[in-house]
Amino acid sequence: MDFDSRFRDLIAGMKLDGRYRTFIELERVAGAFPTALWHRPDGQAQAVTVWCSNDYLGMGQHPSVLAAMHEAIDLSGAGAGGTRNISGTNRQHVALETELAELHGKEAALIFTSGWISNLAALGALGRVLPNSVIFSDAQNHNSMIEGIRRSGAEKLIFRHNDAAHLDELMSRVDPDRPKIVAFESVYSMDGDIAPIAAICDVAEKHGAITYLDEVHAVGLYGPRGGGIAEREGLAQRLTIIEGTLAKAFGVMGGYVAGPAILIDVIRSLADSFIFTTSLCPHLAAGALAAVQHVKAHPEDRALQAANAARLKAMLEEAGLPVLDTPSHILPVIVGDAHLCRRISERLLAAHGIYVQPINYPTVARGQERLRITPTPFHTEAHMHALINALIAVGRDLGWPGAQQAA
Amino acid sequence: MDFDSRFRDLIAGMKLDGRYRTFIELERVAGAFPTALWHRPDGQAQAVTVWCSNDYLGMGQHPSVLAAMHEAIDLSGAGAGGTRNISGTNRQHVALETELAELHGKEAALIFTSGWISNLAALGALGRVLPNSVIFSDAQNHNSMIEGIRRSGAEKLIFRHNDAAHLDELMSRVDPDRPKIVAFESVYSMDGDIAPIAAICDVAEKHGAITYLDEVHAVGLYGPRGGGIAEREGLAQRLTIIEGTLAKAFGVMGGYVAGPAILIDVIRSLADSFIFTTSLCPHLAAGALAAVQHVKAHPEDRALQAANAARLKAMLEEAGLPVLDTPSHILPVIVGDAHLCRRISERLLAAHGIYVQPINYPTVARGQERLRITPTPFHTEAHMHALINALIAVGRDLGWPGAQQAA
Repeated sequence: MDFDSRFRDLIAGMKLDGRYRTFIELERVAGAFPTALWHRPDGQAQAVTVWCSNDYLGMGQHPSVLAAMHEAIDLSGAGAGGTRNISGTNRQHVALETELAELHGKEAALIFTSGWISNLAALGALGRVLPNSVIFSDAQNHNSMIEGIRRSGAEKLIFRHNDAAHLDELMSRVDPDRPKIVAFESVYSMDGDIAPIAAICDVAEKHGAITYLDEVHAVGLYGPRGGGIAEREGLAQRLTIIEGTLAKAFGVMGGYVAGPAILIDVIRSLADSFIFTTSLCPHLAAGALAAVQHVKAHPEDRALQAANAARLKAMLEEAGLPVLDTPSHILPVIVGDAHLCRRISERLLAAHGIYVQPINYPTVARGQERLRITPTPFHTEAHMHALINALIAVGRDLGWPGAQQAA
Repeated sequence: MDFDSRFRDLIAGMKLDGRYRTFIELERVAGAFPTALWHRPDGQAQAVTVWCSNDYLGMGQHPSVLAAMHEAIDLSGAGAGGTRNISGTNRQHVALETELAELHGKEAALIFTSGWISNLAALGALGRVLPNSVIFSDAQNHNSMIEGIRRSGAEKLIFRHNDAAHLDELMSRVDPDRPKIVAFESVYSMDGDIAPIAAICDVAEKHGAITYLDEVHAVGLYGPRGGGIAEREGLAQRLTIIEGTLAKAFGVMGGYVAGPAILIDVIRSLADSFIFTTSLCPHLAAGALAAVQHVKAHPEDRALQAANAARLKAMLEEAGLPVLDTPSHILPVIVGDAHLCRRISERLLAAHGIYVQPINYPTVARGQERLRITPTPFHTEAHMHALINALIAVGRDLGWPGAQQAA
């Protein structure tokens, strides 16, 4: 078989379709966030304003996080040297797991090398250890949850996005004796909308189901201590498992689940993707621990982020730009065409030093292509004015209908 | 359903079976490797000698690796803040990928958050983009390769371990027009044996197959520049893809694949587990780059590790202990009973300050339970004598038949 031409055809098709991803080479500059250096294809470096980072609170440059990492590197070196079971469990992992369990009011927590793996491992193991189980999955669930459910081998039933009544309808049709798991997110990454957690828990409890909530876009950002939307709404104790990430608001990398000790022990003992992987570097656990502790104690960072998101949203609306009316910090500006979305992004970067990555299919549905804007506490009013002005100028230049009504 | 008792039964079953894993809480001490602190359940810390780390060359404490990490943290902070596509590609990632491609003599490389994910992503994508393909998999392949092949949806045919003739037989039975991939490892983790790479490549080439070689237990350790067994045997150019890890001989964390640029682009563009994951922290890429550069330039570290492995193996044999006769740095001492294996390990730790994790089912087959010993350049002759003496004393005490003939 001519593999080469098969591969070339695939890539050519993606390019034609506007789906081909071009990575923008950045150099993060600690202390200057959201400014970073863009290493351009011509070899020049140029300062740009990053508007699409998930380092939502700028904890990736926080002195206490960096100090904890430096200290742990001096103390314990670089890698863990093994899987958790084979010489790879370190003091720093155990301390972080204790802190995360406490953050969510759970008995235990387990960390993974990424949020993606935490969903694969936890949902994959859950469905496998509960014979004949059914997993009810929100229609907009993240790829990692879908992969976890697939791996579990359990039957999957998809309920309409954020629709507790539809969930109830689906659950009512299934034999009451079958083990049931309801898997959903709190803040959805691409639309920035928020699940009706209480209503979903009502339905899940009625049917005796385990509840599994992905809070990766919420931990650190919502709730009095940054425990997420479940904490904010006083619902954490109604969720069996809360899954989160160390790579967004906590500024480092890795993912985790928190829940009942026996269930965490089951996941720890049976999830292949956990068992057969070198554990997180100890200093990453130390940095994440410092981040969680800081974020718990500093609601003012969350408040400033929320205020900046509200201010930019008002400015986008005032300018007549097509921003979705979301109840979260995620501001999706809809373009609706893959090639145009990419061209707007490229022009913003090259001509205005503004970096917002285009979000195209398959991350969002076709026709829903967008710029996903994430304000942080470090974006100033000047950054916001520059963004609005650039969006209008580039949009008009490139014939983007969304910018035609703009002020 | 009573989830709780289902979970309790599962855990109880594993304990009864000797399969329940107890994590040993360590504190790595940079500069003191292989000595680490064991944080005992009673709250005391005790210095122990680690004999089961995959930090094969001690690069996890190497000053140049730690300096590169410190420097990159000062420069660029902690996390990447996004997926590779959405603000998460950094200068450090690009530099590391260039270096890894060069190490293996390939056009391109792609890094992942773990070796486990690199196999899931690469094999999973390969099988999916080649309709009607067949993946020929060595019977002893690692869990991550098995999971990648499963995820690909491709037909899987398993050839007998390291048996090129059986591979040929299986390949001959498959329609010549179907796309074929041969997936295997160079050094197998648990038995420490080495694949007949040239013979397998002969068969694969005869049938026009893509070859995929996992070198995670070989990169850094074999070949003039640490390029692995394929480099040592002058075969790197016959492998389509070489997969490796940054978490073992390179002392950090993460995994990678190296291969033809077009194929790396396909994996980059289509593997969900790559696309939807926050990228490695930039400073980890910087640390790994320093490690690769050091290891390439210092064959004497590899030579010392090999000499220490040979010396300890001779000492184990001389003492009459049941060590497998392996051609690699991995020294498996067979116990053959899960409970005994665990008890020997516990006693070595508690009474002798020697840490070798028991390896039980499902990591190895039942009856093959073992202590897997991995000498490094930092293990001294005194460490080796202490290990031999402790193995004999503990073995006799606990009635281990393997230690009864020991001198």
